[in-house]
Order: sequence, then structure tokens, then C-alpha cells
Amino acid sequence: MPVTLDSRDADFETAFRALLEAKREDSPDVDATVAGIIADVRKRGDAALIELTAKFDRLDLSAETLRISAAEIAEAVEQVSQKERKALETAAERIRAYHTRQVPNDAQWTDPDGATLGWRWTPVSAAGLYVPGGLASYPSSVLMNAVPAKVAGVGRLAMVVPSPDGVLNPLVLLAAQIAGVDEIYRIGGAQAVAALAYGTETIPPVDKITGPGNAFVAAAKRRVFGKVGIDMIAGPSEILVIADGDNDPDWIALDLLSQAEHDESAQSLLITTDADFGRAVAASVEKYLQTLERRAIAGASWQEFGAIITVPDLDTAAALSNRIAPEHLELCVADPTALSEKITHAGAIFLGQWTPEAIGDYVGGPNHVLPTARSARFSSGLSVLDFMKRTTLAQMSPDALRAIGPAAEVLARSESLEAHGLSVTARLRKLNG
Amino acid sequence: MPVTLDSRDADFETAFRALLEAKREDSPDVDATVAGIIADVRKRGDAALIELTAKFDRLDLSAETLRISAAEIAEAVEQVSQKERKALETAAERIRAYHTRQVPNDAQWTDPDGATLGWRWTPVSAAGLYVPGGLASYPSSVLMNAVPAKVAGVGRLAMVVPSPDGVLNPLVLLAAQIAGVDEIYRIGGAQAVAALAYGTETIPPVDKITGPGNAFVAAAKRRVFGKVGIDMIAGPSEILVIADGDNDPDWIALDLLSQAEHDESAQSLLITTDADFGRAVAASVEKYLQTLERRAIAGASWQEFGAIITVPDLDTAAALSNRIAPEHLELCVADPTALSEKITHAGAIFLGQWTPEAIGDYVGGPNHVLPTARSARFSSGLSVLDFMKRTTLAQMSPDALRAIGPAAEVLARSESLEAHGLSVTARLRKLNG
Repeated sequence: MPVTLDSRDADFETAFRALLEAKREDSPDVDATVAGIIADVRKRGDAALIELTAKFDRLDLSAETLRISAAEIAEAVEQVSQKERKALETAAERIRAYHTRQVPNDAQWTDPDGATLGWRWTPVSAAGLYVPGGLASYPSSVLMNAVPAKVAGVGRLAMVVPSPDGVLNPLVLLAAQIAGVDEIYRIGGAQAVAALAYGTETIPPVDKITGPGNAFVAAAKRRVFGKVGIDMIAGPSEILVIADGDNDPDWIALDLLSQAEHDESAQSLLITTDADFGRAVAASVEKYLQTLERRAIAGASWQEFGAIITVPDLDTAAALSNRIAPEHLELCVADPTALSEKITHAGAIFLGQWTPEAIGDYVGGPNHVLPTARSARFSSGLSVLDFMKRTTLAQMSPDALRAIGPAAEVLARSESLEAHGLSVTARLRKLNG
Repeated sequence: MPVTLDSRDADFETAFRALLEAKREDSPDVDATVAGIIADVRKRGDAALIELTAKFDRLDLSAETLRISAAEIAEAVEQVSQKERKALETAAERIRAYHTRQVPNDAQWTDPDGATLGWRWTPVSAAGLYVPGGLASYPSSVLMNAVPAKVAGVGRLAMVVPSPDGVLNPLVLLAAQIAGVDEIYRIGGAQAVAALAYGTETIPPVDKITGPGNAFVAAAKRRVFGKVGIDMIAGPSEILVIADGDNDPDWIALDLLSQAEHDESAQSLLITTDADFGRAVAASVEKYLQTLERRAIAGASWQEFGAIITVPDLDTAAALSNRIAPEHLELCVADPTALSEKITHAGAIFLGQWTPEAIGDYVGGPNHVLPTARSARFSSGLSVLDFMKRTTLAQMSPDALRAIGPAAEVLARSESLEAHGLSVTARLRKLNG
């Protein structure tokens, strides 16, 4: 059984804090290894990639076979069933429709002083998408990263995905094809991140790298940050369900388990106004844990990090939720919209009992790459904006310079930046004859 | 003399690459020291802050005097001249007006499948602003960081600024007051960043930290990233001026020098279609370098990293500019708007001869915290968005779940995430009777 709490108990605050601060992930310190790998790829390029891929993925490559060919992709995707292809296309279409609305507007205006101001958004020229191999190689993640990049207008989208022992994942390749990925390389780990950031003879460098990965990939992304842009460093997944007593305990149990089955470090929390309902959900979780394919993982996560919290009212639920700042938040209550308005920190909100979080993982439309580990307090899920950047624009008319130039001169002088001031003074002298 | 190049020369590409790759900053590796300081502040809180401030700033503080009191602030700001106060107010007002236009819109819509989708932006609850002490303690930077935070709706804005030997900077305190900063602490270095990120007995933690600083501050920001959000890690400043021959060489020389005077590592570049004009600018720079207060700094920067590049036409200028991805770009040409449309990567563009870059440092309106070191390829200047985050919203109607749920079931199964699929299946079973 996971921890059960009641917000009215005397020791609740202590127990709740422990829950908030639970360290769920013990990242091994692989930074020194990763630094060595990056230096090697920078120095030896393709040769280093080939050597490291032979070592880690037991796969012999040449410069010619680093990239997965169009023929190989075509052959692999033929293995995907029509049903799966259709589902991927539905997902891609819905993700595309949602993200198209995120494309930001440019702006330009002239203010009363005569200054024309504005900004313009432009896409990143080239982006790289990391896709893990093995168990965590999710076609849905390919869509969630690649579609926003293409909606943003990224010209060149390169994907890297390790293929241990040469095994390709047809669904991942099909998702890449549907999303419009331009190049796919069969490399992974820190060496793939280094290749994307610095380029090799075969792989031109990109400007931004996104996508999930293991500790080596995360450390590599941290290291190349600055040379290129990166998305967030994601931690283990988490869900908070706020539910009143008027729900089917099985549905809520399955929603909690759908996070727990990701990873032993995942966290599933339930806050309910109905203690009996909470007990019914706990019983249902135990029931499903008898049969689920991934019951070992889900059970460990639920046992170690799960919790059921009873609260007297939904205001208390909202207040606790804002302290948790959950990645995923389900509001299974009579008026989810009203409750959602009290939520100030959450990656994604799923409103009402017909919106299980799993819908958001695949076909809802919003991105499933979301801030974990309470980082929804200060960051957002992946979006089109992650693949664009804003250039600010300013043009002074002579009148505008006359109006605001003197203030700039004063401030430049007060900061002891003489040339700053003189660059304005020289122009004002001309204007004022 | 700095390097002079002509894009038509045979060895241009080599020389231009060298310019792009010039390592302008030799960051000392202070990471181990910084890790120790952060651990100390986490462990001992105020006591560590007080000890480190005594050591580095030669200043004896107590828990009661860590924060600069309202009376001290009032006394300090009285020393500021009316002229300087007025200039700061003009700057703040214009920065506020510009940034108010950046406040993003929420969105909500119902799609043809019956899914109600959208997003909502909310401010970060608490932000921390780092302000350097000494020579780089700029009141304009206080405005550029604090005003966007307050426009975003940040509830609590805490500022840290070291005061070596107890000396306060009245202009910095006045800028903080004008911008609406809520709390000011007289601490600096990695210890101040640690206090903001983790909190102490006296200083509640914040969710996001912005502002410039030295190598220790930068290393500390990198280390606390994840626990809190941070803005960019800024490198030395740079400017690129693209000018035709129809400009006053003195004006352009002063614009180049206004970057060079910041820092010996700053970089000032001129691209011109007129080689004679380029020579006239070079001569003018030498002239001003005889008299400028900061001629030692500006001269070193110009000598080491400056360049004048002659090109046959403005299209070539734009292409080179996009490879440089400059922090600041001045377009001093007959039709700056037309040229600006060819620019794909730049932090800020200043259009026309009446818009010296220094206007943008103080009173233009756009932010002066901008991506350096070619990072305009993938990132943007500071904005209101840096102090907000987006929560995505999704609500399925029963019809919507019926329409798109089956695709989610298929994809969950293909990713071997059984509970994901079952959470949809259980609901569809109810819907389909």
C-alpha cells in the first residue's frame, strides 16, 4: 500500500513535505564519461561515432551506413499494420492542428514618440531529435517532438535513434516519416548528441536538440547547452488526479497505473474529497496489479511513490496541487472548469472523467513532453515556440531620437559608458543643427 | 588595427570562419568551488551567507541586515539627481509599454471531434534577480529584468546585489524601486544564487532566477537549473553594423565603440559595401580611442576581436550576418526594412541611421538582455514569456472519446503500455454500453 494521508491530520504538513521532496531518481554521475565521449566525437567525427556504436550497440557501421537509407525506411514501415498506421496518422493530424494554433504573431507599431517598434519570429534552421532505443522508444514521442518543429518551419530536422544489434523500430520510423523528419541516423547516447551539436563529416550540426534520453543523453544535453539550444531535462513522469466520490474507482485506478507503468520512479497521486472513494481506488489498483503486463514496474512505483490524500474540499485540493505543480493533472469532479481556474502550476490539465491522461499521451493534440519534478512552477511543455526565436525591432525617426535620446545620454553617463552616450550625442548634434 | 576582410578574397572563407570561432572568453573552471558554496548555503542557510559575505565583500551582516531596509533604500535614492530619476522613469515607462504587448493570449476552442482544447498562461509565483556589484552594476539591467517580471504578473520579485565594503549603488536601488522590486538583499556571488534557489531562514526561495553575473554566478545558475528556472548564460556583448557608404563614419565608429567599451572580450564588426567608408570608420575609431575614458578596454576589444568586412552587395551582407547571428545588428542602409527581411538570426535589429544601438540599451523599449555568442540561432532575448508558463488544457466529450479513443488504444498497445490503453477502454466500454 502506498502512503495515505488526510490534510486535517496534525502531522500532514510533515508527511506532505516528505512526499514533495522525495528523491525519485538517482542519476548516476556520468558527466566525466560523457565529457570524454563528446571530446572524442568533436575530434574524430564519424570515426568516433562508428567506434562507439560498435561498442555500445554491437553494430558495425561505416560513414555510408550511419544514416538509415530511404529504402530501409520504406521496407521497415511496410511492416506496420494499417490499423497502427491509421492511429499514428490520426495522432499526427490532431497534434498538428493543436500546434498550428501556437504559431506566434509578429508585431509592429509606431509609438507616440515616433519610434517604430516590434518583433519578428523565425524558425530555428536545423533541429535534432533524440529518440531512445529499446523499451522507451516511443513513436508517440517522435510525433510530439517532430510535428511542432515542422509546424514552426524548421528547415532541416535530423533524428537520431540507436538500433542495438541493428534492430530498427518500424513504428518509430513511420512516425518520423509521417511527421516529416528529413534525416535519420542509427546512433544514440552521448555520441549522438555530440554529433548533432558539433557535426561530423557525415552529419551537419543542428542548432537545437530535443527529445528524451537516459542519464548519458541528459548529461550530454546539459554539456552542449549553449553551443546549441536544448529542451528541458525531463525526469520521471508523474500524475495527480483530483477526484470527488462520484467517479468509477476502476477508471481512476487505471489512470494512476498508466503513469506508474512507465517507470519505477514514476509517481501517481490521488487527492479526493471522499475517503471511501480513495479506499475503493486503492483496492482497484491492487486488483489491476495482479494482472497488468508491467505489474512489476507499476507496483514498485505505486508502492514507493504513490499516495492517496483525503481533503475536506476542492479548494484544499487545488492548494495542494499548486504546491505539487504536477506534470499531468486530471480533474475528475463535477465542475472541472471551475476547479481548473484555481490551478496556477501544472504542465497539462485533463478536465472531466472522459479525459484520461492517456488521451493526452497520444491523440489529444497538446504536447506530451511536459515539465516534471515540480518544474511546472517555472516552465512549460514543448511547443512550437521551442523551435522558433524572436528578433526585436526598433527604428527611431529623427523626432523619436530627439524625444528619447537625451534620457539615453543621461543613463549612459551614469553608467560610465561614454561611447554609448556619444553615439546618441553625435546624432542629436546633427538634428539640432 | 583590427582585421579587414573582403568577401571576394580567395582566403575569405577561412578568415571569416576564424572570426566566427574566435574564443573570446576564457571562463575559469570554478565549478568545484561553486558546488561547495551551494552545498554550504543549503546546509547552513543564513549563517553561510553571512560568513561568505564577510569573506568576499568585507561586510559584517546579521540575519536582520541581509535585507536592505526600506529606510536605507529611501535614503540612498534621495542622492539621485532629478535628471537621472527622470531618465530612469522614461526608460521604465518605455520598457513597460513594449513588454506589455508581449503578454500572451490564452486560447480555447472545441474541435470537430468534440474535444475542447486550449492553453492558459500563468506567471511564475516568485522570481529572483541577480545584479552584479562594482563596474557592471547597471541600473538599466535592473529595469530590463524587473519590468518584464512585473508585467508578467510575478507576485514576489526578490533582488540580490553585492555591496562590497557596504557601498550601495543609489541608481540601482532607484531602478529597483521604479520597477517594483519587492525585496533587496545585499549578497552576491554563487552564495546569492544558492539562497534564491534553495532559500534560507531569512530569504524564501524563488522559482526563477535571471540576471547577469561573473563566472561564479554563471556556474551557480547552471548548477541550480532544474531546481529553478534560469535565463540564458550570457557571454560578452557583440555588435554587427551593416552600413552602406552613405553614413557618417563618426556615428558608426561610436556605435562600434559602444560595444567595445563594455568589455575587452566584446566584439564589434562592420560589414560595408564601400571599402573607402570602411577605412574612414577605422580612422574615426582610432581618433576616438585617443580620448575615450574607457579607451584601454575599448581599444583591446577592437584590436583583438574587431573586424571590417567589405562585401559587393547587401545580399552578401545579410548572408554573412545570418552566419554570425549577432546579438545586436544595426542596419544603416537606405532601405533598412527591406534588408531586415533577409535577416533570419539576430537578437535585436536597429533600423536606420537614427537608431544607434545605445538607444536599445536604455530607452528604446525592447529588452537589452539578448542572446550572445551566436545563440540567436536558437534563442531569444529576455521577455515577459520568461516569467510565465503555459498549462495545456484538454477536455473530451463522450463523443470525442468515442471518436479518438480507439486510436489511443492502438498506440498504447503498440508501445506496450497496457494500463494506458485500459484507461481508455474502460470508459469506451461504458459509453458503448
